[in-house]
Amino acid sequence: MTLPGLTIDPAAATPVYRQIAEGIQRALHDGRLAAGQQLPPTRDLAKQLSVNRNTIVAAYDLLVEQRVATGHTGRGTFLVGAAGGDRPVNPDDPWLGAFARAVQGPGVGNLLTIYRVATSHEGISLAGGYPAGELMPVEPFARAMEKTLRERGAEVLSYGPTAGYGPLRETIAAEMSRKGAPCDASSILVTNGSQQAMELAFRAFVDPGDAVVVEDPTYTGAISALAALGARVVGVPLDDQGIRPDLLKLALARHRPRVMYVQPTFHNPTARVMGEARRREVVAIAARHRCVIVEDDWAGDLRFEGRDLPTLHALDGGKHVLYLSTFSKKLLPGLRVGWVVAPEPVFDRLVALKQIEDCGTSPLVQAALHAFIASGFQEEHLARVRSAYLSRSRAMDEAIRIHFPDGARFTRPSGGLFGWVVLPDSVDGDELFTAARERGVLVGRGSLFHVSGGGRNTLRLTFASSSEEQIRSGVKVLGDLLNRRWPKDRAASRERDFEAVPIL
Amino acid sequence: MTLPGLTIDPAAATPVYRQIAEGIQRALHDGRLAAGQQLPPTRDLAKQLSVNRNTIVAAYDLLVEQRVATGHTGRGTFLVGAAGGDRPVNPDDPWLGAFARAVQGPGVGNLLTIYRVATSHEGISLAGGYPAGELMPVEPFARAMEKTLRERGAEVLSYGPTAGYGPLRETIAAEMSRKGAPCDASSILVTNGSQQAMELAFRAFVDPGDAVVVEDPTYTGAISALAALGARVVGVPLDDQGIRPDLLKLALARHRPRVMYVQPTFHNPTARVMGEARRREVVAIAARHRCVIVEDDWAGDLRFEGRDLPTLHALDGGKHVLYLSTFSKKLLPGLRVGWVVAPEPVFDRLVALKQIEDCGTSPLVQAALHAFIASGFQEEHLARVRSAYLSRSRAMDEAIRIHFPDGARFTRPSGGLFGWVVLPDSVDGDELFTAARERGVLVGRGSLFHVSGGGRNTLRLTFASSSEEQIRSGVKVLGDLLNRRWPKDRAASRERDFEAVPIL
Repeated sequence: MTLPGLTIDPAAATPVYRQIAEGIQRALHDGRLAAGQQLPPTRDLAKQLSVNRNTIVAAYDLLVEQRVATGHTGRGTFLVGAAGGDRPVNPDDPWLGAFARAVQGPGVGNLLTIYRVATSHEGISLAGGYPAGELMPVEPFARAMEKTLRERGAEVLSYGPTAGYGPLRETIAAEMSRKGAPCDASSILVTNGSQQAMELAFRAFVDPGDAVVVEDPTYTGAISALAALGARVVGVPLDDQGIRPDLLKLALARHRPRVMYVQPTFHNPTARVMGEARRREVVAIAARHRCVIVEDDWAGDLRFEGRDLPTLHALDGGKHVLYLSTFSKKLLPGLRVGWVVAPEPVFDRLVALKQIEDCGTSPLVQAALHAFIASGFQEEHLARVRSAYLSRSRAMDEAIRIHFPDGARFTRPSGGLFGWVVLPDSVDGDELFTAARERGVLVGRGSLFHVSGGGRNTLRLTFASSSEEQIRSGVKVLGDLLNRRWPKDRAASRERDFEAVPIL
Repeated sequence: MTLPGLTIDPAAATPVYRQIAEGIQRALHDGRLAAGQQLPPTRDLAKQLSVNRNTIVAAYDLLVEQRVATGHTGRGTFLVGAAGGDRPVNPDDPWLGAFARAVQGPGVGNLLTIYRVATSHEGISLAGGYPAGELMPVEPFARAMEKTLRERGAEVLSYGPTAGYGPLRETIAAEMSRKGAPCDASSILVTNGSQQAMELAFRAFVDPGDAVVVEDPTYTGAISALAALGARVVGVPLDDQGIRPDLLKLALARHRPRVMYVQPTFHNPTARVMGEARRREVVAIAARHRCVIVEDDWAGDLRFEGRDLPTLHALDGGKHVLYLSTFSKKLLPGLRVGWVVAPEPVFDRLVALKQIEDCGTSPLVQAALHAFIASGFQEEHLARVRSAYLSRSRAMDEAIRIHFPDGARFTRPSGGLFGWVVLPDSVDGDELFTAARERGVLVGRGSLFHVSGGGRNTLRLTFASSSEEQIRSGVKVLGDLLNRRWPKDRAASRERDFEAVPIL
């Protein structure tokens, strides 16, 4: 079984596996291949094209990732059909095997594994996305909750408005306006953390097959949410000022996405801050291409050095930028409260989707949070955690300088919860992850955040939720492993993530 | 501009507007019409087919509802394209006009209006979907919350497991097992109310264009969630034992849905209870057609007369029935806590989608709810509300007998929060709704719950959240309006909802 008409050019700039995947997509588009059809066994196609079998496997994996095909180990790779009736049936359980495309593909399983690691409290965790547990203002929050239940228990234990608890929306609007992004409470939708804010924003604009531009690497939760919507995720690399404008223009021109997703401040995972000139440039480029920006400012209040920069939302005047943020990172993750600010025609759609997803966030929690902020404890808390995070990020920086091989690069962040490490090229992050885990240290693998492959020699290390002592011990364990397992490669790391990668 | 080849048969059993809509769908399917194409002005097509223009409007509305077309007042009706690139552009704001199909169509706006009415506390509301506010156990809950924050504040204010707070999952599993549906805590996913449980269940199985069978009428929140997923909603009428098995078989055979959604107990909106024999029959029919059942048991604990029947989930042994329920109706809506029980391969997908939507329900709220139940207050509360709801439903029944015209039918429910009224045929529910609202009485319009049109002469009346005095006053206002505005029609109402309607 072969694919007549499929050719490759080994001399071309595009990697061969991408050429193959693109060729198959073209054939599907032109009608030479049909939805539901099985692709040739990798062995056969490798023979036909005179390439290594792994190249075919990589091409098929890419097609599965792009939801063009579905792969089942041992049962072949099939092109995805346009309608539900073509869905493959799971022979083990014909009823339950045929899930919606939203939950097909490898992304779903990975996601749960990532989250389990990220929220693990075993040993020393430098992998989590959470703030310092021991600094959480538990008692002042308990007092705010007590007051809320005493004064307005029956009200907040009933259903509330879908868009959120009025006084909390007022408070958020006032805080944003104070920080230079004037906005009205009526444009604020309270969500279950910024994950939901982001997911709703994507749902309002993305149909299956639509392209969405993201920074590459980017937040794993964004990758999963987009995968569930069947989006084609187009990654654009960063330089030290943020997303690269030359490649961004290219991606917007070629893929015409309705939406792009960026984290200009303390970008997750690289901790970079987009420069002010770059911010203006990105807003202008998006405007020229009529692309809505979803700006995720999850850590905007967690700067511990330098000065705040205007958000894209502020630069744009809130016209075509959806701004989202959260109380999870700066305050208390267990509340599950975030928000999104959107211009009116979008706002109504977001509220409708919020209603469809869960009828609104708990009014009880929102009211208690409002009472907590009104009592003035949030500012006090922020001052305390910023100071702790500054010390912890310094401790991490110093420990990395002492223990990591010379080829490793770490730029100490000016805010947020994590730092980003680029290791010598030869280092395999998966292997390092496993070895470190056996020694009681959890790290975030950089490869998980990359949408176009790569990043195996990168790590995301959280300084926020460990003591300085734990950070020093954890980094020492990693350094020892690196020096023992990859002792020869002392060459400076290549900053792969700064380079242009082909944009499919 | 006409549509050559489109013909109708005025003598056929299928209404003419449906024949037209089906003809257009067939033409689209056969390639005689193309995605993105504009349909003829209603005037032209009415002339071509020699029918009333309103018939064409109804046909186009149906196509819009089914997401086959998009309608923009004054700008014509367009067939929907298969890919994102074909989306219509809003000339008022070219950036923001082209939303995802999830938030196109008339359903989105209706939804918010319905919710605003349903959660309104103006005057006497017989429209809400909420329990008795003044009976809510505010103080015992406040004590449980205080204890939770004191004993485990830091833990529950941090991130928790996506699937839910362990002890609450154990409690739910134990309660279900005690009631004859053995299930393990590991199969329970805690959600933000049963709305999210339902929405996740649909997302796991429904791709755009897939058919989903529901009872007709059914819960408006289900209709909206399915519309946002681009499902084709196929309504099957009920008789006094529940969903009609003859029509269910027909619908499953013709549309081959992966999923059907039912509320066997205190069906919303009709308050009917599916009989035990019918339950067994429905489970068997679904099994024969390999259709997964999503069983919404939102009010299972709110029976105030008669004996509990086994759930479909219990009858099936949890193999191919997803069971969902909530604490919103039996306890406290403001917690936003519900759950879904699913067999393993489905469960993992639901957890992944939950992670994608919001990273998990607030552990704080879940832990406080667990502490509340452990303190034994839930049973006490349930006994109190059941007794109140029995009295209130009796008061409503009596008031309707006194004040409503002879042709009106009301069957006093044996549980839940609402009763269902079928009024004389001539009564226009929209007109009644508006007139009653002006007099400070809110009612639920039955038409909103119907998926195939109709039900204009039906009302859903909530007895749970008003005092007996308010119920008597509200029903009297409605009765006076009915007798004044529709004085002549004293004929017995036809039970439209008991009759077979054509299944598209």
